[in-house]
Amino acid sequence: MSGNNEVPGRSVVMKASMILDAFAGNRVAMSLSDLARATGLPSSTVHRIARELVTWGGLERTPGGDYTVGIRLWEIAARSRRSYGLRELAMPFLQGLFDVSRQHVQLAVLDGNDALLIEKISAARAIDTIGRVGGRLPLHASAVGKALLASSGEAVQSRALARTLAAYTPFTLTTAAALRLQLAETRRCGFALAVEEMSLGAVSCAAPILGPGHEVVAAVSVVMPAGDASPGRWSTAVMGAAFGVARALTQHRPPAAISAHLTG
Amino acid sequence: MSGNNEVPGRSVVMKASMILDAFAGNRVAMSLSDLARATGLPSSTVHRIARELVTWGGLERTPGGDYTVGIRLWEIAARSRRSYGLRELAMPFLQGLFDVSRQHVQLAVLDGNDALLIEKISAARAIDTIGRVGGRLPLHASAVGKALLASSGEAVQSRALARTLAAYTPFTLTTAAALRLQLAETRRCGFALAVEEMSLGAVSCAAPILGPGHEVVAAVSVVMPAGDASPGRWSTAVMGAAFGVARALTQHRPPAAISAHLTG
Repeated sequence: MSGNNEVPGRSVVMKASMILDAFAGNRVAMSLSDLARATGLPSSTVHRIARELVTWGGLERTPGGDYTVGIRLWEIAARSRRSYGLRELAMPFLQGLFDVSRQHVQLAVLDGNDALLIEKISAARAIDTIGRVGGRLPLHASAVGKALLASSGEAVQSRALARTLAAYTPFTLTTAAALRLQLAETRRCGFALAVEEMSLGAVSCAAPILGPGHEVVAAVSVVMPAGDASPGRWSTAVMGAAFGVARALTQHRPPAAISAHLTG
Repeated sequence: MSGNNEVPGRSVVMKASMILDAFAGNRVAMSLSDLARATGLPSSTVHRIARELVTWGGLERTPGGDYTVGIRLWEIAARSRRSYGLRELAMPFLQGLFDVSRQHVQLAVLDGNDALLIEKISAARAIDTIGRVGGRLPLHASAVGKALLASSGEAVQSRALARTLAAYTPFTLTTAAALRLQLAETRRCGFALAVEEMSLGAVSCAAPILGPGHEVVAAVSVVMPAGDASPGRWSTAVMGAAFGVARALTQHRPPAAISAHLTG
């Protein structure tokens, strides 16, 4: 706590990002000591940097004095092409899919070893699901994850399948061999299913969105109650939406192409 | 450019935020020299800090070497309660409003002297509008802006009306007196209209969303073509959606209340 020698600029930026990273979990509000614990930084350092982040607007204070993510950070983040750029192009097609399904419609990108949810449209009476915008789903247990993985290169697949494959339900596939069979099936059929593999009672159907170079850019899915007839019956609508977004990506290519960057 | 003496931590955080702020305009990709120009910082400083932001994921590089906002920033920003927390609660009601209108549906909060757009649902064939998610609309010329202003305290109104009120079209109200009359009308009727005041050919109808303490939290609007019958005929649907979100805010109050923070 004491001996607060100023460190060079490099690590100050890293410390600020560690503080922001502490909010990437499910905590919406954190106290000074929560942040010190989460980052491993001295309270005095957290206090000083957090105060600067509040001045900027990247963090805000709650009436109780806790810290939360600020609206300024969100405003800047809305310029992210892999999230909002893609979202804007995809929205009319997601909307169309929602109109016919009246279930959860999701848009996700591959980020590290997870599927990161970029958008979710939900009816008020749709079933409870785990995913929320900005949240992550495991690649091996979600339909969007399997659609992303099936269309990725061998290096990405090997890395993902070499990890411990957690069982979320008794139906989660937890061996690389079983998953490789499903990924091959997904490539053949053009869509992926997750049948109560992520949550009991929920079934989802996803299709990959391919960029101009046939690289996978994102995946779109519908999540519905397990009892709701055959999930495969949604596959045409899901693939149609994915195809629509892919066409929009190709046609809408700005100079420093969104699509090129989407794969980065 | 030379004499790169390391400055204390405080200003490094500020310099990093200046670099991120440079993306808050309409630029999605910026070169090193663009960033140096926009921030007024030496290229060497921008280069060093931007590299760290890339390592973290707050910035990403395009294939051409430019910088763009990174998906990591977006992931953290998705924890912002005044944007995504509110958005999640509001989405089913926005969706309902979209279903009946098939026009642009917008959700905005008051931020500084602007209405900041948190969400927008658009049909593929809806009219062109200025607003986009993460973008800002003027308080005096937009329906969401007038709805927010009409429900705000006298201090907020005076500050907003004391500014230069830009004329976006020949129909924009540019005097405080004319706007005060409309704000009183908005309070009396429960909704605000902007009739070609922001863009020629576009009309919008907005209603304020009030929090548990009757403080204004956000506003919801429908934007439609000017020729599309009387905009007032949408007022009931718009007010209904606003009321639905307000009820959800009150019922859904988490421990460190979203609603309390929303007003902060």
